[in-house]
Amino acid sequence: MSSTPRFFVTTDALQGDLVTLPREDAHHARSVLRLRAGEAIVVHDGTGMAHTAALVEVTATQVTARLVASEPVQTEPRTHVVVAQALPKNADKLEQVLQHGTEAGAAGFAVFPAARSVARLDGDKIDKRMDRWRGIVKGAAEQSRRGVLPDVSWHPASRELLARAADFDAILVFHEGATGSLRDTLALLPPGAARLMVLVGPEGGFADAEVAGFEATGAILVSLGPRVLRTETAALVGLAQILFARE
Amino acid sequence: MSSTPRFFVTTDALQGDLVTLPREDAHHARSVLRLRAGEAIVVHDGTGMAHTAALVEVTATQVTARLVASEPVQTEPRTHVVVAQALPKNADKLEQVLQHGTEAGAAGFAVFPAARSVARLDGDKIDKRMDRWRGIVKGAAEQSRRGVLPDVSWHPASRELLARAADFDAILVFHEGATGSLRDTLALLPPGAARLMVLVGPEGGFADAEVAGFEATGAILVSLGPRVLRTETAALVGLAQILFARE
Repeated sequence: MSSTPRFFVTTDALQGDLVTLPREDAHHARSVLRLRAGEAIVVHDGTGMAHTAALVEVTATQVTARLVASEPVQTEPRTHVVVAQALPKNADKLEQVLQHGTEAGAAGFAVFPAARSVARLDGDKIDKRMDRWRGIVKGAAEQSRRGVLPDVSWHPASRELLARAADFDAILVFHEGATGSLRDTLALLPPGAARLMVLVGPEGGFADAEVAGFEATGAILVSLGPRVLRTETAALVGLAQILFARE
Repeated sequence: MSSTPRFFVTTDALQGDLVTLPREDAHHARSVLRLRAGEAIVVHDGTGMAHTAALVEVTATQVTARLVASEPVQTEPRTHVVVAQALPKNADKLEQVLQHGTEAGAAGFAVFPAARSVARLDGDKIDKRMDRWRGIVKGAAEQSRRGVLPDVSWHPASRELLARAADFDAILVFHEGATGSLRDTLALLPPGAARLMVLVGPEGGFADAEVAGFEATGAILVSLGPRVLRTETAALVGLAQILFARE
């Protein structure tokens, strides 16, 4: 339950028993957290290992630390759930999904424009937005002590999402008009189904043609119950309930 | 699945087969929703009944409608969960808890300053803030088609919350250091335990002395799992999981 600062790095940041934090983390470590040489940090390498390290050098552009101990992180859920979130009207709602979904245990996020998504993201805005989204996920993963950094991807059309179907044991579509409950749907999945993708619609829900397309690829429509949930609430409630049911 | 506008009223707004919306709803109906005489609305009276009504008169200060049909609302969870949320630093987080918690099915909200709550609310600010909080809950209840309007209360100290313990079958405290999981805790409650209160700490969690006080009154410490959840995430994840487990 220590509050030692945590950083996610890529494995190439580890060289022998030294770890070098990337430039943006160096600024954060020095100027925001005010860390100094000798203090301890925990470095997560994204493969599920956490390394306790002692700071060797802290400058405005580089932070180096020496690894002291390594142990597997025990915070990852057994079920791998990717949240495919339709672009909501309000950018803040997507950020809530990324933030809260990372804490709750999402394996990754796939953002896509649905038929009824009011907001649009053009080519040159995507990169900037993706940087911001990945930063939010990284910060949330560090705070919540995730062992693996959830991936964030952008799909310009929902059919590209469905092209990833082979990577998953099941694709669930949260849909207000569905007759099957989440509980019943989960009970019908094979016990070994450990890789799930959940599709969450935009404010106006999925369009009929979209839903038909999802069903045609074998996705399962699921109701989250009789109350109407906003898009950002649906993502978190569904994720929390799946992880609760399957852990 | 109709998107007919919904309004929560108190039972005294119903007189025979006529219903009168309060002044603030009249403005919303006329100027925002642009409703006109003859159109349909659904009125929830807060006792679990929904009344379909045809608008008779719509002015800037008053809306009158004639009841056409009444039926019980089927959206209420069987388990009554009051979310007792410690005042967070950022007012926006509390509003997320109220908004999303209402959609997810909270029976009510009790807001209180915990030992580590950074924000403070003084006497003269409370009334204004309560009005705002109740407005958020009312709007969320209308959108999510709740049958009952969740109550919002303010408790100047956590001991006042615990004075309400006799109204509940169990009080659960979401606490990072707890050893019992939510699943195990729920499994140990009597099957008839239908009235629960959950206590959610502020950003820094509950203080040790506070936790000891909760335990002394019979509250049960519960862990929401190995990942560290922000206060607003903990409230929604815990509520969603309790309602999933018990419905």
